Amino acid sequence: MVIAKARAVNGPDKPFHAAEIERRDLDSHDVLIEIKFAGICHSDIHTARGEWGPVDYPLVPGHEIAGIVTDVGPEVTKYKVGDRVGVGCMVDSCGKCDNCHKGEEQYCHEGNVPTYAGVDKYGQPTQGGYSSHIVVTEDFVLRIPDGIELDAAAPLLCAGITTYSPLHHWNASPGKKVAVVGMGGLGHLAVKIANAMGAEVTVLSQSLKKKEDGLRFGAAHYYATSEPETFEELAGSFDLIVNTVSAKIDMDAYLSLLKLDGALVNVGAPAEPLSLNVFNLISQRRTFAGSMIGGIRETQQMLDFCAEHNIVPEIEIISAEQIDEAYERVLASDVRYRFVIDTSTL
Amino acid sequence: MVIAKARAVNGPDKPFHAAEIERRDLDSHDVLIEIKFAGICHSDIHTARGEWGPVDYPLVPGHEIAGIVTDVGPEVTKYKVGDRVGVGCMVDSCGKCDNCHKGEEQYCHEGNVPTYAGVDKYGQPTQGGYSSHIVVTEDFVLRIPDGIELDAAAPLLCAGITTYSPLHHWNASPGKKVAVVGMGGLGHLAVKIANAMGAEVTVLSQSLKKKEDGLRFGAAHYYATSEPETFEELAGSFDLIVNTVSAKIDMDAYLSLLKLDGALVNVGAPAEPLSLNVFNLISQRRTFAGSMIGGIRETQQMLDFCAEHNIVPEIEIISAEQIDEAYERVLASDVRYRFVIDTSTL
Repeated sequence: MVIAKARAVNGPDKPFHAAEIERRDLDSHDVLIEIKFAGICHSDIHTARGEWGPVDYPLVPGHEIAGIVTDVGPEVTKYKVGDRVGVGCMVDSCGKCDNCHKGEEQYCHEGNVPTYAGVDKYGQPTQGGYSSHIVVTEDFVLRIPDGIELDAAAPLLCAGITTYSPLHHWNASPGKKVAVVGMGGLGHLAVKIANAMGAEVTVLSQSLKKKEDGLRFGAAHYYATSEPETFEELAGSFDLIVNTVSAKIDMDAYLSLLKLDGALVNVGAPAEPLSLNVFNLISQRRTFAGSMIGGIRETQQMLDFCAEHNIVPEIEIISAEQIDEAYERVLASDVRYRFVIDTSTL
Repeated sequence: MVIAKARAVNGPDKPFHAAEIERRDLDSHDVLIEIKFAGICHSDIHTARGEWGPVDYPLVPGHEIAGIVTDVGPEVTKYKVGDRVGVGCMVDSCGKCDNCHKGEEQYCHEGNVPTYAGVDKYGQPTQGGYSSHIVVTEDFVLRIPDGIELDAAAPLLCAGITTYSPLHHWNASPGKKVAVVGMGGLGHLAVKIANAMGAEVTVLSQSLKKKEDGLRFGAAHYYATSEPETFEELAGSFDLIVNTVSAKIDMDAYLSLLKLDGALVNVGAPAEPLSLNVFNLISQRRTFAGSMIGGIRETQQMLDFCAEHNIVPEIEIISAEQIDEAYERVLASDVRYRFVIDTSTL
């Protein structure tokens, strides 16, 4: 058993504190990873604050993990000590259902085992990446390509795959017009990835504050959704809209921006139900869809794609002491574009 | 100019009355059709009663039209006198936009010209099929295959294509599990068509009253949606759900019946917005979509498919005097499964 340093939270309104957590002894296919960097995802905040339902505290969030393999179980074949690896939003799945067989472990019928706030196959609560070490079965470990630094790799494991997967599944490619709603941690990566896939990218952001960044990241166009004329001007324009905003938006307004057979894909879900006028779907055979992270095979594909196209997130490295402050800044949209914890400061 | 006999309505709450309407002189590409049969579609009722917005009265509804060509314009090449033909929900479109170029005239950016309650390119109001004659440009006339009687052909022009198009577009085929919501005029054709496409068909109807019919039409399974256990038992079962019910339904309950990557397609739109929990889309990458009738090429494909597979709607022939009564019976779901007006009784 490894005793790992960590930052944990003890309740919905409690600050983070230094803690020690146990990581299990290596099972035959387990990999022990010394975590170097862990990204801060908005989901961490929702979960830590109990906004997505009751949580067993203490909780160690973090599912954007990058580090180095420091030990492997006796039957591990995919990784060896010294390998540069990552772990994303899930650390296991049943491996037997048809979705797992398809490589879509995120949609496992038994439910995938989330990296934190879940229960693993040993019946133990899972704890995430705000930690010095983690033990994960090799099938849920990703290889970080040489071209990507570990600190920049971390956010790809959630923000990267969450946007890559729908862009890939709905075929963002040359000749396609893709809009990205929201220019946060997910949105800025969506712009870079969609652009690298060859699509013509438009950012739909509340204001024009981040316009220069958006254009630099590869967007061809940048519109403020606070301007009503945006929706008139762009009516019927897009093949694909990836909505990275979890807050409730005016679905009818955004659906009207799709062409015939266009798709609006949500990668986050607002807490309350969304309402829409079905005629907006029928009138141009539009689809409204949802997408959740990505499978393990696809996550590796995304990492390799990002290395090939020199795509990395824009990050701000923080120390463990700054997590609470970082949470507040994420909530205030005061981050360009992802906080990454340097776990050497734990 | 041809003076056609017709049945018209003079206001939202007025009964039908015998009327005469003018059909334009044949333009170079026009076809004059002597209408033999006209189906009664639920849309006729909504429109006649002003439920879909203000209407110019007198109104002659009817967009499920079957008849015989009795004259053609000088440049008509597709049809000749004596041909058995049909007309569906639209009689023209701009012909220039990208959707028209794709053969998806129903989604014409200028708006297609509906068979009734529209305005044609001559600036005249369009009047529908409850009538002895109609003049339509040849590109919007369909050929009725020899194997299909004219009375049975009529409902295929709306109910048939409205269900065939999404089944075809979303690939109902062997190995696919397809559910049809609603066993009315559209639903019963959806069952027959999906079955002929090779899919395993399940009917989801409010009650089991029409179960025997459903199984006879080709459904493998038949469930009552009034039973809560239906939704438990069928959770995650379907690749495709075609919802033929325009009334507001519990979207979350129906979405939960879809497999990974499954699609729920509405072919009608309730008057009020629908509400749904986006998590139901995200959790299995499901899509919610809409589909509106079908293009002209696809409508011909549908007619040929129905002829090849001996698919005809179940119809009840009525006389012109019975239209008001038939409307009441449609609203009371007291029709198995489509009323067709014998226009010789006009």
